[in-house]
Amino acid sequence: MREITVHDLPDMARGAAVLGTGGGGDPYVGRLLAQQAIRNFGPVTLVDAIDLADDAVVIPTAFMGAPTVMLEKLPSGTELAAALLALENMIGRRATHTVSIEAGGLNSLIPFAAAAELGLPLVDADGMGRAFPELQMLLPTLGGIAATPMALADERGNAISMRTPDNTWAERFARSATIEMGCSAAISLYVLTGRQVKDFMVHGTISLCQRIGTAIREAAEAHADPVAATAAVLGGRQVFRGKLVDVQRATRGGFARGTAILDGVGPDAGARLEIAFQNENLVAARDGQVVASVPDLICILDTDSGEPVTTETLRYGLRVSVVAAPCDPRWRSPEGLALAGPAYFGYDHDYVPV
Amino acid sequence: MREITVHDLPDMARGAAVLGTGGGGDPYVGRLLAQQAIRNFGPVTLVDAIDLADDAVVIPTAFMGAPTVMLEKLPSGTELAAALLALENMIGRRATHTVSIEAGGLNSLIPFAAAAELGLPLVDADGMGRAFPELQMLLPTLGGIAATPMALADERGNAISMRTPDNTWAERFARSATIEMGCSAAISLYVLTGRQVKDFMVHGTISLCQRIGTAIREAAEAHADPVAATAAVLGGRQVFRGKLVDVQRATRGGFARGTAILDGVGPDAGARLEIAFQNENLVAARDGQVVASVPDLICILDTDSGEPVTTETLRYGLRVSVVAAPCDPRWRSPEGLALAGPAYFGYDHDYVPV
Repeated sequence: MREITVHDLPDMARGAAVLGTGGGGDPYVGRLLAQQAIRNFGPVTLVDAIDLADDAVVIPTAFMGAPTVMLEKLPSGTELAAALLALENMIGRRATHTVSIEAGGLNSLIPFAAAAELGLPLVDADGMGRAFPELQMLLPTLGGIAATPMALADERGNAISMRTPDNTWAERFARSATIEMGCSAAISLYVLTGRQVKDFMVHGTISLCQRIGTAIREAAEAHADPVAATAAVLGGRQVFRGKLVDVQRATRGGFARGTAILDGVGPDAGARLEIAFQNENLVAARDGQVVASVPDLICILDTDSGEPVTTETLRYGLRVSVVAAPCDPRWRSPEGLALAGPAYFGYDHDYVPV
Repeated sequence: MREITVHDLPDMARGAAVLGTGGGGDPYVGRLLAQQAIRNFGPVTLVDAIDLADDAVVIPTAFMGAPTVMLEKLPSGTELAAALLALENMIGRRATHTVSIEAGGLNSLIPFAAAAELGLPLVDADGMGRAFPELQMLLPTLGGIAATPMALADERGNAISMRTPDNTWAERFARSATIEMGCSAAISLYVLTGRQVKDFMVHGTISLCQRIGTAIREAAEAHADPVAATAAVLGGRQVFRGKLVDVQRATRGGFARGTAILDGVGPDAGARLEIAFQNENLVAARDGQVVASVPDLICILDTDSGEPVTTETLRYGLRVSVVAAPCDPRWRSPEGLALAGPAYFGYDHDYVPV
């Protein structure tokens, strides 16, 4: 257990955006919202998952939508508390803790805003160990935990709660409501007991975010290689160094979808890497050969600064390096791959673990 | 107060479909569902609005969606109780009565199914005095009553409840959820006190449905003119007699939209009537001149039998008569016309009362 102050946030947001693999929201927006809430309401207590009482009521908070939109339609902050409150009213119980459903620049940081405002401790964990575009893609889904009761809220005072027979239906209704809300919404879902957090969530994600962010900053400050430092913390490897020569992007079905094309430089000169994304980076193919794919992590970093590059900030001319890193081992089970492997996203190649 | 048995239903469904002005759902489906519920659970008590206690908790039940779809995807019956229950849970109170939100073949009859199954009396009233395509188009909206808290449910076990800042937002979210549910959903909304029912609903609608249906049946049995009989009960007039020569229909945005074209016969030979609909008949124009439009009622009846023809059953070759009848006077106020007049539906002609 430790106290998180505004000084912890910059490294944490940077590292969260790395684990967000292009998605999970913008780290700058996430940091600002967390910072403002901590300034207004005081520091947040970060609790290790292992220290939770088995009967703790842990209610995650997050933002859902197209990152493209969330950069322009900033959350006002009130939606998160509204979503959590609507969910509490629906289940007739109060949260004892909140937690992140995914790692990402916005979605690792936004629960700090909810925690600060509502005076709740935050659990040092998340539901994916990375970011994924759809809300059924949580390890708790593999553990049989229902996403619903779930609530969504927006800045206009709309609040929607739902019960669905499975987590895929939850995604479907939540996505269409999010689209009506203007392609972004605060959500609260996957009500968990402390025991379930211990069993089905990824432990230590927030601390990992901070370690990654610190490693990048320190490497950059020391004029060392921040990409290598990131790969080391993630247990992954650099798979490409190049220059962005093309980005295709469209907001469709409430998602930011597209592809980025990199021409190799240095050791990768003459090669080309194509990265397909749906909010998050899904597949990286080098000269037509898949080198990494979901559920493993494909992280794009600025080659010089090591700063993570989200799908929204991809632009022509950026010099970037791509790090591939192993996902949580549970994603590699047949059930995990069915939920978030290449086939689910419509790719016909087999999953080859990084 | 009187008991409604299955013997009352055929006339009632027929008359309800007349008031449905082409929409409000299919009378055959409505009758079947009400009949089955009354057979299973016993007769339903119909209560006059005026006899309600001021603090009665009146919770309407209805189906929402594209009539085209509801003819093929029949309600299972369990959705209605699920929607009402979800709404009761949200507001923390139990309904003392249910009521129709609109007059229509399905939506006047379906509350009988809810009433029978849940053992609730039904109020002899409705929220429009006709059917309209969007859920904010209720007289209670004019009275400042909120559509939400509202709940939707489907046959798969999905249940969604919502609070919105106004009734137009309720329509928007409910429509998109209904589309995800396969273009039809059971809904429960506009929680009313007995006092509010007395003040803002149309009184006696269910009895009126039965009177219209009886008049049509008796006229047809007596080889009299069932169209004239209908016009007499409605206080309206026959505006056209013709043959359907073209129907254009599309299910778009969760609505059945289209136009029907009639070539005149008998007294109207040589003239042409065009009727535009969005679930309900919106505007009737004779040789380019508007002869009736929302919010007034435009009812299409089979010329021989007097049976109401819904937009779904319009087909080439049908010999039909068109009756126009005045709406509830509250629809003719500036606020009423803003909510459901020609301009709202995108027509640039002024409203000319029937």
